Amino acid sequence: MTTNLTPDTLTDTKVSAELIEAGKRAYELDREHVFHSWQAQGPFKPMTILKAEGSYVWDGDGNRLIDMSGQLVNTNIGHQHPAVVAAIQEQAGQLCTIAPQHVNIARSEAARLIAERTPGDLNHVFFTNGGADAVEHAIRMARLHTGRYKVLSAYRSYHGGTQLAVNVTGDPRRIANDYGDAGVVHFMPAYTYRSYFGTTTEAEETERALRHLEDMIVLEGAQNIAALILESIPGTAGIYMPPAGYLEGVRELTKKYGIMYIADEVMAGFGRSGKWFSVNHWNVIPDLLTFAKGVNSGYVPLGGVAISDAIFETFRDRVYPGGLTYSGHPLACAAAVAAINTMADEGMIENAERLGRDIIGPRLAQMMERHPSIGDVRGAGVFWAIELVKNRETKEPMAAYGGSSPEMNELIGALKAKGILPFANFNRIHVVPALNIPDEVLEQALDAIDEALEIADKYVS
Amino acid sequence: MTTNLTPDTLTDTKVSAELIEAGKRAYELDREHVFHSWQAQGPFKPMTILKAEGSYVWDGDGNRLIDMSGQLVNTNIGHQHPAVVAAIQEQAGQLCTIAPQHVNIARSEAARLIAERTPGDLNHVFFTNGGADAVEHAIRMARLHTGRYKVLSAYRSYHGGTQLAVNVTGDPRRIANDYGDAGVVHFMPAYTYRSYFGTTTEAEETERALRHLEDMIVLEGAQNIAALILESIPGTAGIYMPPAGYLEGVRELTKKYGIMYIADEVMAGFGRSGKWFSVNHWNVIPDLLTFAKGVNSGYVPLGGVAISDAIFETFRDRVYPGGLTYSGHPLACAAAVAAINTMADEGMIENAERLGRDIIGPRLAQMMERHPSIGDVRGAGVFWAIELVKNRETKEPMAAYGGSSPEMNELIGALKAKGILPFANFNRIHVVPALNIPDEVLEQALDAIDEALEIADKYVS
Repeated sequence: MTTNLTPDTLTDTKVSAELIEAGKRAYELDREHVFHSWQAQGPFKPMTILKAEGSYVWDGDGNRLIDMSGQLVNTNIGHQHPAVVAAIQEQAGQLCTIAPQHVNIARSEAARLIAERTPGDLNHVFFTNGGADAVEHAIRMARLHTGRYKVLSAYRSYHGGTQLAVNVTGDPRRIANDYGDAGVVHFMPAYTYRSYFGTTTEAEETERALRHLEDMIVLEGAQNIAALILESIPGTAGIYMPPAGYLEGVRELTKKYGIMYIADEVMAGFGRSGKWFSVNHWNVIPDLLTFAKGVNSGYVPLGGVAISDAIFETFRDRVYPGGLTYSGHPLACAAAVAAINTMADEGMIENAERLGRDIIGPRLAQMMERHPSIGDVRGAGVFWAIELVKNRETKEPMAAYGGSSPEMNELIGALKAKGILPFANFNRIHVVPALNIPDEVLEQALDAIDEALEIADKYVS
Repeated sequence: MTTNLTPDTLTDTKVSAELIEAGKRAYELDREHVFHSWQAQGPFKPMTILKAEGSYVWDGDGNRLIDMSGQLVNTNIGHQHPAVVAAIQEQAGQLCTIAPQHVNIARSEAARLIAERTPGDLNHVFFTNGGADAVEHAIRMARLHTGRYKVLSAYRSYHGGTQLAVNVTGDPRRIANDYGDAGVVHFMPAYTYRSYFGTTTEAEETERALRHLEDMIVLEGAQNIAALILESIPGTAGIYMPPAGYLEGVRELTKKYGIMYIADEVMAGFGRSGKWFSVNHWNVIPDLLTFAKGVNSGYVPLGGVAISDAIFETFRDRVYPGGLTYSGHPLACAAAVAAINTMADEGMIENAERLGRDIIGPRLAQMMERHPSIGDVRGAGVFWAIELVKNRETKEPMAAYGGSSPEMNELIGALKAKGILPFANFNRIHVVPALNIPDEVLEQALDAIDEALEIADKYVS
């Protein structure tokens, strides 16, 4: 059903000597002129990627690796999907860009396809360039709609890199940016494996986490709170699945107190979890939903906010005080139209669900039996985390929260040596391949992870 | 020297009936699903753009208009430049996207070409998706580099739509977003035509505006001020040229007090004013320089910050706490490489300078003699403003600051009827064509503006 390229159908499994040379020159220029995200620039030794196709990337030496990172968990359809590449090329030939105040065919169609898929009455789409500005604008809409200021957000979350978005974030990336008043208050999320509430069952975790949240709402003053923002399944923060009933409870509480519920689906959306949006797992309908990444697999920068009818009404006769030059960019929207249609036509969402249920889930469960270094595995679709610990009883992480460790670095190095481009964060390895990774390639990658975890096992005490 | 399409070489001056039908359907979908920037969504009746080529766009009825707006003053190379379209198509076929932590050939080359052109030692480039996030990150860099918090910014300025960027902004778009503490203090800019300092000459304006600025620095506490951000030539706020000596004075004051000078070149940069960057007119070297728009004419969303060696050093061994998924996006960077090379190869910067000096400047001066409604004309390159007034003595604007007026709406309607897509803001018409607009097309557009201004003259008292 999926058309992604398998090793046998790849036109070319090697890269040319010329491309390798060009990559070396690019490396030098990079070190001279490119300032990288989230890095100390001096000691940073970036990996060169010369080429990418389907679920493979080629490094600067021409080695082929299986992309188990989705880059930053965005290439949901894999690399260089021919249908989406062709759509970008066609749109580029017709009309690359047009200002946001005009009507554009690709933009209208992208909005229709997205509105058709978002839950409930989220019928209106404001396009941004990425996830961070989507979050910024969703908060602005909630504030102006409610006339309130504060925003509630979970610890152990990530919502973007601009000033408001990074202050809404609840991971260490916020800390160096925590000055001024962003109007954000953080609460403890439901996180069954490392419960903040001393619970041992999912049901208990849901109940206590919701009680904690309601107490915070009351103690902060419900009438001051414009929005609650929550990753439906937290991404880089650990793919910790919300326990049964939690999101429904959050939806109830936000309704009860007149707080806008912003579901952040930037990483979890567009099929990553085996549904179009991960709120669909729980039939929760938020007031605003932010997206980016998977909407067009990042082939062209695009993000956005899906807006409920009620919030739209607020801005029917009142100017929305926000915008950007590239809102609804034709090239980005054409890529979204092609990506969404391709995901639908090729059954990628169902495939992701199947991969999670029949392959990744069972394989990770087996690994957990075999490897004492695995403290927890969790996820859905092609969105999984392996949480590594030095001791299952104490749950001491294989790297401290917010940092790395020699043990994790050794493991990551071994994975690369085995031909895997992994996604790692602190003490976790995330298993986040493309939705259309061929079964045999996925199995091969899981075999490599399974083998490499013997390294982590050495450090279990 | 420029290869832009003239009316005679246009392959097709009409659009097909099918495209017009598709445009009608797009309009309906737009009204149903697209949430627009800076609008009240209900009464908004957007114009459809079906096609664009060189300096022309075609509206929903298939009428051809001369694009005197540059959309949002971003299509510096005009629409659908074949060399840049081809580069996008080629890069799309090779490698659309890769995460920011890897090395990419297009990104390295774009960084090199930009660093080569930015003034002084601005040798490092952090890529963003657009101007707003460029401004946000430039401020963050300045804050972390200095250890200070406050930012000085001019009234009558625009710096972007995200929360920090819009609060740095000094135009009415900020006002509905002015809550919390963004750490921003606004000062009065030098604006000779409507001096805040009671001056009548440029020299006096420069002297008093700088005295005002130094007083504000001292009164706010220099040791609290991380950055001063200033559009080198303010864009949407009115293309009011800084009087001689002003930017040099700002540079001196910021040096004197250890304040990082952020030159916002998002609109004025990449040839718009007839130089690669508009600071080049005054030989000013800022500490940080933000760009977007003209870097690749917005064909693919891209922005960025050029960073001095000294600020780079701050982040050599210390993590820069900021980033984004699409930083240095290969497709966007490939478009930048092609756009910069094309601008250089086709002499577009020099052409823009010539158009301003030999055609636009003289023509606007003539219009000012003929039309009592013109209070002021000013600009450089292809970056000009016509400021309309009801009375030259009182300088009463043709529309109140922050609003529109029936008079301005009548004028804008007449311009469109004459085949011009104008850029209007409050009481101003901006003359902001592509850098490579053919002379005869420009003359035709200026004729139309000249004629249409008779409407404005009717309202002069």
